[in-house]
Amino acid sequence: MTARSTADVLGRASGPDAGRVVHRARTLVAPALADAVATLHPWVAGMADYALGREDGPSGPRQGKGVRQALAVLGAELAGAPASEGVPGAVAVELVHTFSLVHDDIMDGDSMRRGRPALWKEYGTGAAVLAGDALFALAVQTVGTAPAAVRRLSAALGDLVHGQADDLLFAHRPWTGPEGVTVEEYERMAERKTGALLGCALALGAHFGGADEETASVLDRTGRHLGVAFQIADDLLGIWGDPRTTGKPVLGDLRQGKKTFPVLAALGTPYGTELSGLLASGDESGAQRAADLVAEAGGREAALADARRHLAAADTLLDSIPSAPRPDAELRALLVALSRRSV
Amino acid sequence: MTARSTADVLGRASGPDAGRVVHRARTLVAPALADAVATLHPWVAGMADYALGREDGPSGPRQGKGVRQALAVLGAELAGAPASEGVPGAVAVELVHTFSLVHDDIMDGDSMRRGRPALWKEYGTGAAVLAGDALFALAVQTVGTAPAAVRRLSAALGDLVHGQADDLLFAHRPWTGPEGVTVEEYERMAERKTGALLGCALALGAHFGGADEETASVLDRTGRHLGVAFQIADDLLGIWGDPRTTGKPVLGDLRQGKKTFPVLAALGTPYGTELSGLLASGDESGAQRAADLVAEAGGREAALADARRHLAAADTLLDSIPSAPRPDAELRALLVALSRRSV
Repeated sequence: MTARSTADVLGRASGPDAGRVVHRARTLVAPALADAVATLHPWVAGMADYALGREDGPSGPRQGKGVRQALAVLGAELAGAPASEGVPGAVAVELVHTFSLVHDDIMDGDSMRRGRPALWKEYGTGAAVLAGDALFALAVQTVGTAPAAVRRLSAALGDLVHGQADDLLFAHRPWTGPEGVTVEEYERMAERKTGALLGCALALGAHFGGADEETASVLDRTGRHLGVAFQIADDLLGIWGDPRTTGKPVLGDLRQGKKTFPVLAALGTPYGTELSGLLASGDESGAQRAADLVAEAGGREAALADARRHLAAADTLLDSIPSAPRPDAELRALLVALSRRSV
Repeated sequence: MTARSTADVLGRASGPDAGRVVHRARTLVAPALADAVATLHPWVAGMADYALGREDGPSGPRQGKGVRQALAVLGAELAGAPASEGVPGAVAVELVHTFSLVHDDIMDGDSMRRGRPALWKEYGTGAAVLAGDALFALAVQTVGTAPAAVRRLSAALGDLVHGQADDLLFAHRPWTGPEGVTVEEYERMAERKTGALLGCALALGAHFGGADEETASVLDRTGRHLGVAFQIADDLLGIWGDPRTTGKPVLGDLRQGKKTFPVLAALGTPYGTELSGLLASGDESGAQRAADLVAEAGGREAALADARRHLAAADTLLDSIPSAPRPDAELRALLVALSRRSV
């Protein structure tokens, strides 16, 4: 472990400003993303712009942060190529990410996204299904000229769908007993649902930057660890985050009975019986008591420890590949910021 | 034009039995299709089996005819390769076809498919969106090792979505006036929505059979012409077909106000004013009168002539590439059978 290890600094910022890294990538990628969307059917392109938050222009306030495009650009730079080489990969992962948000909002019945109606609420379910399909097809077209990138992207797409299927099914499983969801199952779900595309972003950038298959695979695994840490951080914010910062309702994940990491970890302790009774009752007023129980049981600490473990694994993987100092430092800063959900 | 021209024989069968060609391909492809589906998340694989009609086993009565897989297998044979070389392409196009049926049924609100509930009716909309996405991703994975095939498939996917968008929007446009749908627009829609995947099927088979890019492109265009002929034949059956054979309700397309080729052609004649009035009134009892008007106006003849023109174009394209006699004769027999919708 090196002095610049992200695991060492979980909880405090250091080194390059991750916000600037993301901003720079978004500015670099925006024209190519606009060009790609412009090839779509005009009606579908309008929906794609809405979903991408681009209808107020390339730097409007409704855009996603563009974390995945930043990872793709850094992947190319880590491979020793100019940032611009990572652009096709960045466009592809941004399109896939948007596709997955559009379709997931339909599946999850989420009617709001980035402070306004989700695409399916605004245009109708059928139209949103079509727009998602169009984004998906466009992503494949974007990397179609690079065989290694196609294989990487299609594997990530398969994982994305697999992880989403697991996540949907988790909701129908009991809190405890042999049918209960284990922490290990949760981690595999998070790696697929969140990690696969983060890993793919780094790896695609590396492929387009001329990296060999092994380097790309190491970066893929780095992103997968990041994804699990990212998902666990999301879980922590969903219970103990400040609603003014997170935009999520107070204790929303507990009220909705979501099977998050801290809760699953707490269920495996002597507090499990009381906690599962509280959660199974669906009593909304019990949410604060449940949060306290999860913390008492060590669920919060276990989640933090696991997120740190995944970040440390990401660091160790990065240590194993040669890379230029600047993009390396920027990527590590981005990993920390992402795991703190501060970017 | 040769003696075996499909255009010469539109309306009568000759040469190889198209039904057997399709059956042979389905038998050849079934194990690989099963292997591909088995890699999916178990829950999603169950939905994929339902959508593919495979849940009663590989030769159950609910399967699609497998026209696209037959085209892929013939594409490989036309390129001089054994039929088995076309199997990955056949699997990919069958998956894409099934994906498009699953998502289109959601978009179109069609609750029945092959005599039973559509996937979204059986499993719910969200689950069906996910299953379609999984089939899509699996198709890309299936051809992921062959760059030319990936490019071909991703272009077809883009066209498929574009054509579906056009088709959805046609429903909201007026029957006449500057905003009315033209016959030319209809043909471009049909080429994308139906032709692109038929062309892709032939071309993917050819790619996997080792054909050069030009041969694959000729076959792609062949399939696109076939697609337009196929769609027009579907329109003709939707108005004048025997409901006992087609499984469609009597005059259903006219009652639903679908913008089909025969109707659009008739609207451009002196009968147009009366016809558009009848169609715009939404008066169900006027459907038979509308069908008679379309025929009187020459809409039926114009549709038949256009279908024949596209089949002749397909024939001419096939004449331009060298190919072994057996697969060539089989493909031409299949084109005729498809344009008569008798397979």
